Amino acid sequence: MDIDLIRRLSAPNNTKVLLCVLDGLGGMQGPRGRTELEEAHPRHLDRLAEEGITGQTVPVGLGITTGSGPGHLALFGYDPLVYEVGRGVLEATGIDFPLGPDDLAARGNFCTVGADGLITDRRAGRIATEKTAEICELLQREVKLDGVEMFIRPVREHRFALIFRGQGLSPELNETDPQREGVAPLEVVATAPAAERTAALAREFVAQARKLIGDRDQANALTLRGWATPPSLPQLPELWKLRAAAVAVYPMYRGLARLVGMDVLETGTTFDSEIETLAKHWDDYDFFFMHYKYTDSAGEDGDFARKVKAIQDFDVRIPEIMKLNPNVIVIAGDHSTPAAMADHSWHPVPTIIRGDYVRRDEVHHFNEPETLRGGLGIFPAKELLPQAFAHALRLSRFGA
Amino acid sequence: MDIDLIRRLSAPNNTKVLLCVLDGLGGMQGPRGRTELEEAHPRHLDRLAEEGITGQTVPVGLGITTGSGPGHLALFGYDPLVYEVGRGVLEATGIDFPLGPDDLAARGNFCTVGADGLITDRRAGRIATEKTAEICELLQREVKLDGVEMFIRPVREHRFALIFRGQGLSPELNETDPQREGVAPLEVVATAPAAERTAALAREFVAQARKLIGDRDQANALTLRGWATPPSLPQLPELWKLRAAAVAVYPMYRGLARLVGMDVLETGTTFDSEIETLAKHWDDYDFFFMHYKYTDSAGEDGDFARKVKAIQDFDVRIPEIMKLNPNVIVIAGDHSTPAAMADHSWHPVPTIIRGDYVRRDEVHHFNEPETLRGGLGIFPAKELLPQAFAHALRLSRFGA
Repeated sequence: MDIDLIRRLSAPNNTKVLLCVLDGLGGMQGPRGRTELEEAHPRHLDRLAEEGITGQTVPVGLGITTGSGPGHLALFGYDPLVYEVGRGVLEATGIDFPLGPDDLAARGNFCTVGADGLITDRRAGRIATEKTAEICELLQREVKLDGVEMFIRPVREHRFALIFRGQGLSPELNETDPQREGVAPLEVVATAPAAERTAALAREFVAQARKLIGDRDQANALTLRGWATPPSLPQLPELWKLRAAAVAVYPMYRGLARLVGMDVLETGTTFDSEIETLAKHWDDYDFFFMHYKYTDSAGEDGDFARKVKAIQDFDVRIPEIMKLNPNVIVIAGDHSTPAAMADHSWHPVPTIIRGDYVRRDEVHHFNEPETLRGGLGIFPAKELLPQAFAHALRLSRFGA
Repeated sequence: MDIDLIRRLSAPNNTKVLLCVLDGLGGMQGPRGRTELEEAHPRHLDRLAEEGITGQTVPVGLGITTGSGPGHLALFGYDPLVYEVGRGVLEATGIDFPLGPDDLAARGNFCTVGADGLITDRRAGRIATEKTAEICELLQREVKLDGVEMFIRPVREHRFALIFRGQGLSPELNETDPQREGVAPLEVVATAPAAERTAALAREFVAQARKLIGDRDQANALTLRGWATPPSLPQLPELWKLRAAAVAVYPMYRGLARLVGMDVLETGTTFDSEIETLAKHWDDYDFFFMHYKYTDSAGEDGDFARKVKAIQDFDVRIPEIMKLNPNVIVIAGDHSTPAAMADHSWHPVPTIIRGDYVRRDEVHHFNEPETLRGGLGIFPAKELLPQAFAHALRLSRFGA
């Protein structure tokens, strides 16, 4: 989307727009020559496709396989090549850490070093998350740095997120994980002159941390990677002049929604609870992003049947969702995850826009081969949301 | 393709990718209302279309008819509007002349002038190539220019290529062929101030040459056109981290491949010899570009039946090519050359990508009407190669 044009043309009204993201939705032909969507034969999605207009989104670029971060930014209307979300930022958002504009984030690993300071285990024996939480609490309490706030939070097993908060921090730092054992963790050094002060702070952090944990058997050292500052994303509510909320179980998607300015609603750990949350807050917002994870997990596991089932499980809940009576509902995926590849892929992702003002096409089933003939064509994912909002009459006319 | 993104994401592996370019492949309905491809009913291409994913490429832009140079650059993944290849450069590459970055090239014609200096034959009676070679040898030996090296090489009949090599040469020069007889060849003049020195050099070249050949009956003068410097193209092997080779009979295509850094393999003068060359070097490279000329020649001659035959002649060789077992094979054309137009045209060009990870579409025949429904859609030709390499898993994931 053209941010300046959207800012100029967006206009508030009373419509409700619901964006349902089925993670890793797109698939490929499986054992019987049909894709997961074809095999699922999802009657409610088929109905939405029949009533709505369909097409296929290209998340980042033709032939480009994308991660969930860029995939979602594109569905939120942002060019993922312009607004890059670094690894450290994803790790912090992935644990619901509320990143601010002055934050610098890194992914950390606790590791084990021998008496000679050389790494003997890059993952400290994959210590329990609870152990990592204890160490993080210790470091949070004892490490003192001049001129910046520091936050250290457990992620999972030996992994943690480190955030520095302060003015003038730079992500132009090297990664300190040597990616192999038998060598010492690298020292933090600046890869650009503007990062010298940040590098010194990071070294000071590492030195203090090493003193505090150096006598432990396992997690007695650490490495840092993926230094990143949050991208300065135009905020979705201001841009579109609406109230926006996210319903997602998994932290990374909550974090991505927060990065673009959505309110992140409290919800449970199941899709049921997501639907309840959606219903509960239906009157409070104009735009909802709801995330459904299980299509991707099954695809990543290479489990064709489970991906089919995950589609069907979503499908049966559509009548309940439609009872909320959204003016526009969008069905989309952040990328394809064909079970046949057990991985994300570059293949375009089927999508539907269903609302009062869609010009219908001749697609009757929601799947990869049929949506090729859809009225939306094959188009960049970042252009999906503007079209959804257009169908909610939330974009005024350009020119006279 | 986004060059920076490709450089970042491309990753080596052991796959083999074969790009077959059928020159001028796209056609138009002929005497019986069917296109050349429909009339040819090529069973092996149909099979590839059936097993693969299809679409149509737009070489340069919608409605834009392209020459072979830009058409091929696009198929090699480059934006032909960003990387322009001038005529002089094409002529030099077309005779296998190894152009360097400090070279300025022009196309030359020997012509005949009368005693009054006016042109009586713009093509010097189309003298034999051997005659032109003799004159070029004479000029190469005798012409002396200050501060630049000069190369003059025969092309065909009365045509030659002229190359100046040196610092600060500019292509901003006029063409000296007046395009008609009864007037004198024009003088070389600079069309921009930065080209004054180059213009003076070119005039000095013309003056010396005229002295050396002025007493001849036929080729006693010359004209110069298409001044151009080689575009600085990111080199395909570095960009994609692979070994790339070209198999082409005609010099221009060999030259274009060389410009993007492919190794140009020695081959014979027939398509048979191309296939032999391909097989012989199959283990030595990861990517092959193979050029098939006869579809274009027939189209240019307006010979519908011969173009149909040229397609069929290619088609019967596919089983032999497929025995090499490429991981990904691409069938493409650099532009359309409908026999009905006896010329290049702007019409999008049918294409196929066939490989293990294609999401199949519902196209069963390789022709213009059917590939409109293909899973690749209608897309810029420069996006074809990135998609081919994606199917060979040669692009790593963008973002987390």
